[in-house]
Amino acid sequence: MSTISGRHRVTVARLRADAGLRGDDEDVAARLVIQTLIEPGDAVAGAAIAVLGAPAFLDAVLRGEGARALADRLVERGADDGGRLIREFTAGLRRWTPRIDDDAVARSLAQARRMGAVPLVPEDDLWPSGLDALGLHRPVALWARGRHDALGALARSIALVGARAATPYGEHVAVEAAAGLVERGFAVVSGAAYGIDGAAHRAALAREGVTIAVLAGGIDRFYPAGHEALLTRISEVGAVLAEVPCGTAPTKWRFLQRNRMIAAASSATVVVEAGVRSGSLNTAGHVASLSRPLGAVPGPVTSPASAGCHRLFREYDAVCVTSADEMAELAGASSVAEDRGSHARSNDEVRVLDALAVRSARTVTDIARRSGLAPETVRSVLGHLELGGEVAPEGDGWVRRPTLADTLRS
Amino acid sequence: MSTISGRHRVTVARLRADAGLRGDDEDVAARLVIQTLIEPGDAVAGAAIAVLGAPAFLDAVLRGEGARALADRLVERGADDGGRLIREFTAGLRRWTPRIDDDAVARSLAQARRMGAVPLVPEDDLWPSGLDALGLHRPVALWARGRHDALGALARSIALVGARAATPYGEHVAVEAAAGLVERGFAVVSGAAYGIDGAAHRAALAREGVTIAVLAGGIDRFYPAGHEALLTRISEVGAVLAEVPCGTAPTKWRFLQRNRMIAAASSATVVVEAGVRSGSLNTAGHVASLSRPLGAVPGPVTSPASAGCHRLFREYDAVCVTSADEMAELAGASSVAEDRGSHARSNDEVRVLDALAVRSARTVTDIARRSGLAPETVRSVLGHLELGGEVAPEGDGWVRRPTLADTLRS
Repeated sequence: MSTISGRHRVTVARLRADAGLRGDDEDVAARLVIQTLIEPGDAVAGAAIAVLGAPAFLDAVLRGEGARALADRLVERGADDGGRLIREFTAGLRRWTPRIDDDAVARSLAQARRMGAVPLVPEDDLWPSGLDALGLHRPVALWARGRHDALGALARSIALVGARAATPYGEHVAVEAAAGLVERGFAVVSGAAYGIDGAAHRAALAREGVTIAVLAGGIDRFYPAGHEALLTRISEVGAVLAEVPCGTAPTKWRFLQRNRMIAAASSATVVVEAGVRSGSLNTAGHVASLSRPLGAVPGPVTSPASAGCHRLFREYDAVCVTSADEMAELAGASSVAEDRGSHARSNDEVRVLDALAVRSARTVTDIARRSGLAPETVRSVLGHLELGGEVAPEGDGWVRRPTLADTLRS
Repeated sequence: MSTISGRHRVTVARLRADAGLRGDDEDVAARLVIQTLIEPGDAVAGAAIAVLGAPAFLDAVLRGEGARALADRLVERGADDGGRLIREFTAGLRRWTPRIDDDAVARSLAQARRMGAVPLVPEDDLWPSGLDALGLHRPVALWARGRHDALGALARSIALVGARAATPYGEHVAVEAAAGLVERGFAVVSGAAYGIDGAAHRAALAREGVTIAVLAGGIDRFYPAGHEALLTRISEVGAVLAEVPCGTAPTKWRFLQRNRMIAAASSATVVVEAGVRSGSLNTAGHVASLSRPLGAVPGPVTSPASAGCHRLFREYDAVCVTSADEMAELAGASSVAEDRGSHARSNDEVRVLDALAVRSARTVTDIARRSGLAPETVRSVLGHLELGGEVAPEGDGWVRRPTLADTLRS
C-alpha cells in the first residue's frame, strides 16, 4: 500500500462527504496526490493511470519503481511500443519524483477544506463530461467551488473568451453576448481574466445566469487579484474550477492548459476579441483540435484587438458570430452532453436528449425510464424540443435529429 | 439577308475601324441589333446565338420566324428537349419582337459614335475573357469607353464593391484597399455607385492605377449623375463598360445583371461593406456561382453596414480579408486569364502563365512560341513566377502550379 493511504484518505473522504459525494476514496486520494506531482495535461501520467489505475500508478512512483518496470506493466496490459514507453517514463519519473512531498499534500488538502473546495474525479456524476474528450490529457482530478447545478449546466454552455486588453467595443459585445446567452438558457464559461472574460462573467451574473470560471492556479487564491470579489461571487452562485492543488501559482504553462479545459468543458467557444498573439488563439486551437464548434466575433479591420478573430476566420475556419442568437446556433451544432450524456441532471431537456438516439426511435415510456423523468414531463419536453427542430417523432417513438457533430463523426 | 445588313453594317464597321478593331462586321452588327431587342443575361437568345450564330438568329427574328421553326433548327444542330425550346422561344419572341425598331438602332449607334464608344464582341482580343464563364448568360456585345490596355488589365483585377450608404469606416477601408491593390499591380473594378464603389475608383485613380467601371445603363449617360466627372476621368485613363445600347436607362434588373458582369470580369471580388439586403450580396451570389474567389471585409457587429459582409462569411463561405495583401492573395488563388487566357497582352507574366499548363510541362521554347515573347523574356518571367510559387520546373520544362480555382474545377 502506498504512503498516501493512511494519511490522506481520511481527509479526502471527509472532503467528499462534506459535499455529499461518494465514490472510491482510494482512487480519489491517489489522484489528488498525483495532481501534486504532475503538471496539467501530462499524457504520460494519463496513460499510466488509464492502464494501471491511479492508486497502482502512484504506488509505483512512490516506491521508486523504475521506468522499465512501469513500461513492462503497461505492455503486459496491451500497450504498444515498449521502447518509447521506457523513454517516456524515464523522463516522467524525473519530473515527478522531485515533487514527492507528503507534507505539501497535507497542507493543500487542509487548505481545500478551509476553502470548501470539493475534489472531483472522472467517475463522479458532477464531472464535466466534455473534459473526457481530452483523452490522456484529461485532468486527473478537479477542484470545484460553487453550486453543483452550475457544473451540470456545462452541458449547455458557451465559453466567451478574449483579450485582457479588450476595447470598449469588445467588452460591449461580450456583455451583450453573455446576457443573450443567459436568456437562451446557456451557461457562460470563461477564464476570469481582465477584459473580455470579466465582462462576460459579470454580464451573466447580472442576468442571474449560470457562469463558470476556470482558473490556471489553485482554487484557494483567486487570480487576478482585482477579480477577487468577482470570483467570490461566481463561487457563490456559479462555479469555479481548477485542476491544480490548492497553493499552486498560475504559470504560463498552466494558463495554456487552463485554456484546453475551457475548450473541452464547453459546448462551443467564441473568441470575442483577440490580438494576433492573444492567448485566446491558444484556446481556439484546442477547440479546433477537439472538433468543437468555434466562433469568433468580427470587428473593424483597423482594430488590432480584432485581428486575432479575423485570423481565426482565415486559418481555423471559425464561424463568424455576430449575436447571441448566432452563438446559440453555433453551440446547437454540438453539445457536450452528447459526448457522454450522464450529467446536467438539473436540466430536463438535456436529460431527454440524452435518453434519445439518432438512429432508433424510442417511446415516451422508454425515454421516461432512461431519463428518470415522469412520462408527462417527457412529453412536454419533447414537444418543446420538436419546435426547436432538435427531435422528431418516428413511428411510435421519437428520435434525436442528427447534429453537425454527429455528421462530423460519421 | 436581314434588314440590318444594309443600314447598320457601315456604321458598325466605321465604329470598329475608328478604334483599330477588325473582325466579322456582320456578326458585330447583328449582335448590336440583338442587344437592342433583349435584356442583359437573356439565355434563350444566348443559346440561339451559340448554335445559329448572331446573324442567322437575328434574321429569323426579324423575318418573323415562329418558335417551332427556331426550335427545330436548334434541334437539327444537336440541341435537346425541343418541346422546352419551343416554349422558351415562344416566350422569347414575345419579349423581342415588340422591340424591333430600326430607327432606334440607328440612333443608338450614332450616339455611340459621338461618345467615342467602341463595340466589342466575344471574338475580340479586347473582350474580357472572364465574361465567357457566364455561358449562355454572357453579354452578346459590350460597349467600351477608355483605354485598350485598361481592358487587358482585367486579367489581374479585383472588384471592390459595397453599399451606397457606406460608413466612414467602409470608405476608409475601400480607399486603403484600392490604393494597396494598385501598388500590387491589380486593376480595380467597381460599379461607379456612391459610397464604396466611388471611394474605390477614386483611390485607384489617385494612385495612378487602372480602374474599370461597369455600368447598368447606356455608356452615353453616366450614372449616377453626381459621378459624371468621376466616370469621365475613368473613361480617360481606365475604362467604362456597358452591355446595353446607348440611350438605355439603368433599371433594377440591369443593375442585377451589371453585378454579374462585375463578378465575371474580375479575378476576385471583395465586398467592403454591405447591409443585409445590399445589392452587393447579389454580386457576391454571382461570384459564388462562378466559383470565383469571394472576399468580404469584417466590421463591427454593431454596424448594420457590415452585417451583409458577416452574412457572406456565414452563408457563402466568403474569405475574411482585412488588407490589400490578403485581397491580392485571394485573387492569386485564381486569375481570369486562366479561364481563356488570350488577353492582357500588356503583361508578360499573364502571357507566360497563359502559355503554361498545370498537368503537362512545357519548354521555354514552347512557352515563347505560345506566348509570343522572346525566350530570354520567358526565362526571366518564369524565374519571377517561381519565386512567387506560381510556376514550378518539371523535367525539361515548366508547369503552372494548380490554383484554388483549378482545384474547385477538378
